[in-house]
Amino acid sequence: MTPTVGVIGGGQLARMMVPPAIELGLGIAVLAESVGSSAAIAATTVGDYRDVETVLAFADGVDVITFDHEHVPEAVLRALEAAGVAVRPGPGALRFAQDKLLMRERLSDLGLPVPDWAPVASVADLDVFLAAHGGRAVVKTPRGGYDGKGVRVVTAGSDVADWFGDVGTLLAEELVEFRRELSQVLARRPSGEIVLWPVVESIQRGGVCAEVIAPAPGSAGRIAEVAADVAASIAEHLGVTGVLAVELFETTDDRVVVNELAMRPHNSGHWSIDGSTTSQFEQHLRAVLDLPLGATGCREPWSVMVNVFGGLAPERLALALADQPAVKVHGYGKEPRPGRKAGHVTAVGDDLDDVVFRARAAAAFFED
Amino acid sequence: MTPTVGVIGGGQLARMMVPPAIELGLGIAVLAESVGSSAAIAATTVGDYRDVETVLAFADGVDVITFDHEHVPEAVLRALEAAGVAVRPGPGALRFAQDKLLMRERLSDLGLPVPDWAPVASVADLDVFLAAHGGRAVVKTPRGGYDGKGVRVVTAGSDVADWFGDVGTLLAEELVEFRRELSQVLARRPSGEIVLWPVVESIQRGGVCAEVIAPAPGSAGRIAEVAADVAASIAEHLGVTGVLAVELFETTDDRVVVNELAMRPHNSGHWSIDGSTTSQFEQHLRAVLDLPLGATGCREPWSVMVNVFGGLAPERLALALADQPAVKVHGYGKEPRPGRKAGHVTAVGDDLDDVVFRARAAAAFFED
Repeated sequence: MTPTVGVIGGGQLARMMVPPAIELGLGIAVLAESVGSSAAIAATTVGDYRDVETVLAFADGVDVITFDHEHVPEAVLRALEAAGVAVRPGPGALRFAQDKLLMRERLSDLGLPVPDWAPVASVADLDVFLAAHGGRAVVKTPRGGYDGKGVRVVTAGSDVADWFGDVGTLLAEELVEFRRELSQVLARRPSGEIVLWPVVESIQRGGVCAEVIAPAPGSAGRIAEVAADVAASIAEHLGVTGVLAVELFETTDDRVVVNELAMRPHNSGHWSIDGSTTSQFEQHLRAVLDLPLGATGCREPWSVMVNVFGGLAPERLALALADQPAVKVHGYGKEPRPGRKAGHVTAVGDDLDDVVFRARAAAAFFED
Repeated sequence: MTPTVGVIGGGQLARMMVPPAIELGLGIAVLAESVGSSAAIAATTVGDYRDVETVLAFADGVDVITFDHEHVPEAVLRALEAAGVAVRPGPGALRFAQDKLLMRERLSDLGLPVPDWAPVASVADLDVFLAAHGGRAVVKTPRGGYDGKGVRVVTAGSDVADWFGDVGTLLAEELVEFRRELSQVLARRPSGEIVLWPVVESIQRGGVCAEVIAPAPGSAGRIAEVAADVAASIAEHLGVTGVLAVELFETTDDRVVVNELAMRPHNSGHWSIDGSTTSQFEQHLRAVLDLPLGATGCREPWSVMVNVFGGLAPERLALALADQPAVKVHGYGKEPRPGRKAGHVTAVGDDLDDVVFRARAAAAFFED
């Protein structure tokens, strides 16, 4: 029988798992939140991922459950496991991606490089943390944040007074002085095999990933080794299965510290669709099915991915394709909406300046 | 609105159009012959492509109709056009892919290089042709043949006596002494733009494509130029839109002559999924939607595709992936059946011997 992967969530990450499933001859089924989702072509169920019965029914007939996002409640994940369903990554690993306080605590226990941090339960707690860190800090809600949401830079405890009431304990972190942001993406099988793509540079605008350069320029050597070691250590110690993205800061004092984790394909790995022998989406399917992992080398010396926000109007698509015949354009099948991640473009080649130019040129056709 | 391509036929060619449709953010719908087809994930209709009402209903809501195979009756194609549906390639071009006698006649009229040929309506006609061609000929049914079916090598008119009663006039061709078989694949838009992949070598076993080497070794220069000129001339003069594959013989006396045409993505172009910047499947979608065509350069100096027959049992898939982590495995989602094309593998690299070895090694895991 064809092995089938069941994906909870119908966003663009689920969508981008569909092509490699088709190519490899694997089955794929998606539990989408709504009709007309980004992954609609593979949506066998439309329903609420927080509902145990819905999720159990969806899981019947797939070989493994995996995720488009990290928001499935732990109780639902545990119910799946109790019913004998393979869940990858499992709830024991996923909780560290779901809860940033748990993550910080665990990584600190493992002795991995993280910014200074503390749980803060009140304005007074936060003021203490601020006093010890030069009067500035990053405050995060432990759960539910993404793309800059649930994150504030603060100079006074009262800056997040509203959150204490809603959320309870928050995560306060040292405001790291960093030279740039990096991301180390890898995949791990249940049997333990790990493969890593090269560490990449991730350029954010407004708290959202805008561009990725693979590999991160000048990273060969120490930076690449530290990033790989840290990410592999996290994957092993947290028991991650599937793709893991470890977002990192390269600090102005030459440290590499962990910012965030994502236990699924990640925006910083989209370049791999066109730039690596095995894409993060194909690899995720292989990893969660415990199939041998694919080669992660770069197909060209440089790959540059640029996100497209808003929409991909057909007339603009035609202009972009005409102008940049070697750039690969990816659309997520979403209704246009200002600021919404609607797709991305990737250019590859052996001259970084040229590759950056071509990727930005193609993306510019979609900008308002 | 998202441009949507409607594909008639649910085989592996339709299946392999789905990933690039998803990646580019295009819509795709398939009219499949049966449930559980190779392209089932995109099948919006299951029905008979010979039935005008079925096809018209399917065409409602797509922007262009194209094909997984060449068997749609001309009357159905004309009815689509009469209803205002864009059909690409159109019936005026497709009839030359549907009827080998018409094709030979047209190519001869255009002065393009073809084997000696004649229509033969009887055993006596064929005996005359044989007498003029050294007592040997290839006889083909004008319609419906594929993968060696509808083709016989004969030494006497009586060898195809059964066909004359069933089919009527047959196509008799000179038995070409060839060094090897080549294939030139290209894409053409309605607006006239043509792009060509490099000419490839196609290795047949038992009348069926077994392996493809891209580019054809030693083809740079005259062979590549002739193949490109002939194929582009056919595309222009026959008004082909979408992908066109021109199968060619490289004869022992250094001619390049046309064997067969296919007006759709073709087995000899499967290597382009992994080996070219733009795959033939992505290009076909772009061409039939009259979108600008993509770059057709090779991602590595050599690509080798090996067909897989029978099936892709999961336990064999795991062995193949473990042994060849850089080879790309493609499964067509078909029930295993002896001799059936079930998938293909592609290896790429800069050393042809190594690339051939790796592709064959991966494919060997699926052999009985």
